[in-house]
Amino acid sequence: MHFDYITPLLKDAKSKIVLLILDGLGGLPIEPDGPTELEAATTPNMDRLAAEGTLGQIIPIRPGITPGSGPAHLALFGYDPLEYIVGRGALEASGVGMQINPGDVAVRGNFCTLGADGNISDRRAGRIPSDEAAPLVEKLKSIKIEGIEIEIKHLREHRFAVVMRAPGLDPAIQDTDPQQTGLTPFPARATHKNAEPTADIFNHWIAEAGVLLADQPKANGVTLRGFGSDPDLPKFKSIYGLEAACAAVYPMYRGVSRLAGMQVLEFDGESPAEEFAAASNAWNDHDFFFIHIKKTDSKGEDGDFPGKVEIIESVDAALTDLLKLNPDVLIITGDHSTPARMRQHSWHPVPLLLWAPKLGLADRQSSFGERNCAMGGLGIFPATEIMPLALAHAGRLNKFGA
Amino acid sequence: MHFDYITPLLKDAKSKIVLLILDGLGGLPIEPDGPTELEAATTPNMDRLAAEGTLGQIIPIRPGITPGSGPAHLALFGYDPLEYIVGRGALEASGVGMQINPGDVAVRGNFCTLGADGNISDRRAGRIPSDEAAPLVEKLKSIKIEGIEIEIKHLREHRFAVVMRAPGLDPAIQDTDPQQTGLTPFPARATHKNAEPTADIFNHWIAEAGVLLADQPKANGVTLRGFGSDPDLPKFKSIYGLEAACAAVYPMYRGVSRLAGMQVLEFDGESPAEEFAAASNAWNDHDFFFIHIKKTDSKGEDGDFPGKVEIIESVDAALTDLLKLNPDVLIITGDHSTPARMRQHSWHPVPLLLWAPKLGLADRQSSFGERNCAMGGLGIFPATEIMPLALAHAGRLNKFGA
Repeated sequence: MHFDYITPLLKDAKSKIVLLILDGLGGLPIEPDGPTELEAATTPNMDRLAAEGTLGQIIPIRPGITPGSGPAHLALFGYDPLEYIVGRGALEASGVGMQINPGDVAVRGNFCTLGADGNISDRRAGRIPSDEAAPLVEKLKSIKIEGIEIEIKHLREHRFAVVMRAPGLDPAIQDTDPQQTGLTPFPARATHKNAEPTADIFNHWIAEAGVLLADQPKANGVTLRGFGSDPDLPKFKSIYGLEAACAAVYPMYRGVSRLAGMQVLEFDGESPAEEFAAASNAWNDHDFFFIHIKKTDSKGEDGDFPGKVEIIESVDAALTDLLKLNPDVLIITGDHSTPARMRQHSWHPVPLLLWAPKLGLADRQSSFGERNCAMGGLGIFPATEIMPLALAHAGRLNKFGA
Repeated sequence: MHFDYITPLLKDAKSKIVLLILDGLGGLPIEPDGPTELEAATTPNMDRLAAEGTLGQIIPIRPGITPGSGPAHLALFGYDPLEYIVGRGALEASGVGMQINPGDVAVRGNFCTLGADGNISDRRAGRIPSDEAAPLVEKLKSIKIEGIEIEIKHLREHRFAVVMRAPGLDPAIQDTDPQQTGLTPFPARATHKNAEPTADIFNHWIAEAGVLLADQPKANGVTLRGFGSDPDLPKFKSIYGLEAACAAVYPMYRGVSRLAGMQVLEFDGESPAEEFAAASNAWNDHDFFFIHIKKTDSKGEDGDFPGKVEIIESVDAALTDLLKLNPDVLIITGDHSTPARMRQHSWHPVPLLLWAPKLGLADRQSSFGERNCAMGGLGIFPATEIMPLALAHAGRLNKFGA
């Protein structure tokens, strides 16, 4: 694990590091000879940074492995996702500010639609709007189980998070979401004996929720996934010596940042410019800024190639503001690839741009794109190496050995 | 180890994967500016696949390590050769269909020529032809040792395999082949105490063989190497979910495939076209095809640069047939380098071509050769990552984490 050899080398510096993540950045051409989304986008700022900086490719988890968003972000922050397993429940609950203490069990919930036969007919309850879902979450708050503190919070649309607190709880429980329609939700099932009482408690809660929701036209059932507890991650300040901040719109990314010890910035709006403004406002109080752009991934998952190109271009345009802050190190990459052609996350290596005007080594590449990154000076390397590279280029690491 | 995180991600697919190994493929230029064997070869098929696919380089064992054929193939199949030690005896005996059960000890034997002084004058008994060596193997079958079942089988020319079966045998025994002429064969020496009785049994057998062969003009001695038992490798079906088949001519490659759980295909002939035809005939019954071409390595070891070029060209010509099968993933690489200039295996990285027309990301390289592979989109990576990449590009892996 990196921290073992990185932490003893840390030195003080005033430098600022920005890690700009375009979620699902990596793409594929539609036609074999055609451009990828990033190659098709007109990105004068990124191309200048590419010319001045160094390109490379990252492998999020391991070669050939398609990452979920949680593990992919753990890797960006230097935590090997095969070593640090964090349940989605903990990520999302933490993302909306719910406290998860060691021993608590957090889980992500979805409203779903159940047919008369008890089978799921819509896994997202017709993507019920937030203003309809929030009152249902209020209803669920009325469920009481003796000896258990239950906190529940609405996320967006059909999504919510549940945290249970009591002595002796154990999160080793399988998802109840069967991941397809036409099946009944699974019961909460313990994966080892110690977790059986906890599974019973969640099943009791699910049954009560079913009663309360029985008369709902769309959201008459629930599924739960990503049972987990506080992963007790080593924190950014202690491992990297960084006062870290996160500018992100979606709860999961805010959650993983909080679990890593970052301060999650509050700001209005959702645009790249508004996220950059949030970083700007917090500039003097932090050394490290993780900025997360979600919509590149969303457009990729929609199969919307031109839409993804447009988001990349909007980020590039807004970069002008970010660059005025004069970061010492700016890294632009993705957590994984989401090629519009595939409409899903993929295992392909992710293009990366490292710009450190004072200390960077330029390569021969002069625009930001997959094929150029494949010939970039940083080569192809695990995402968990990003943080050491960032610290080094920020003048924050002493020499190893005499 | 890969299988730990790969196996839980497997999903069903109908896709077909071909791993085409040109043994010892990697080469070196004769003149510094000249082409390597692969670069010199006229390979229109491979060049088209290179343009459409992605290039890279593999490191068979570790950087700087020159692999033997056994470990190199274990790595191609995903078994880290530093973790999985398989004796050559087990590989070759298995390759000719001898059953090796846990507790059995298998070893590869060579006929050699001993001078009047008892020293080896020819380690391969003048490469005694098979029709002369086979009757000698029949002779050796007459050796009986009480309580031990002894199976012996002729391979080719001066080579044979011995399997001993009895309770309590232990394969921790050093090679008796001193690897040079002018020395007497070593006795079988146990490397730990438990194996001493087994070493005694083999020394007894060697002595009896010496008596039986004493009057032979060429093959009047034997050496034994690669003592080993059933390595109990995890099998392809259980780790990768693949029904795997092997098309190979030489016993060792058939052996390592069988030990990995592949079905070894029977076919007539030795040419690339005949090997591809064997794969074609078995196409519907298998998901994965390991096809092994030996002669690139043999020509390399002979120092025959144009001969190696010619073999590569013959494989390229035959590829037309293989491509008609429409594999979803075709990987062309070698198990190691065998530069004709060096006349032996080498540690140099091995060029690799990955062609996955539906899901691959092209790089900027448009012909297959060492220097292009060094700038390919897959970078340089351990051979043990080939299988995860193959499974990913074949649509056979689910996402890791939510």
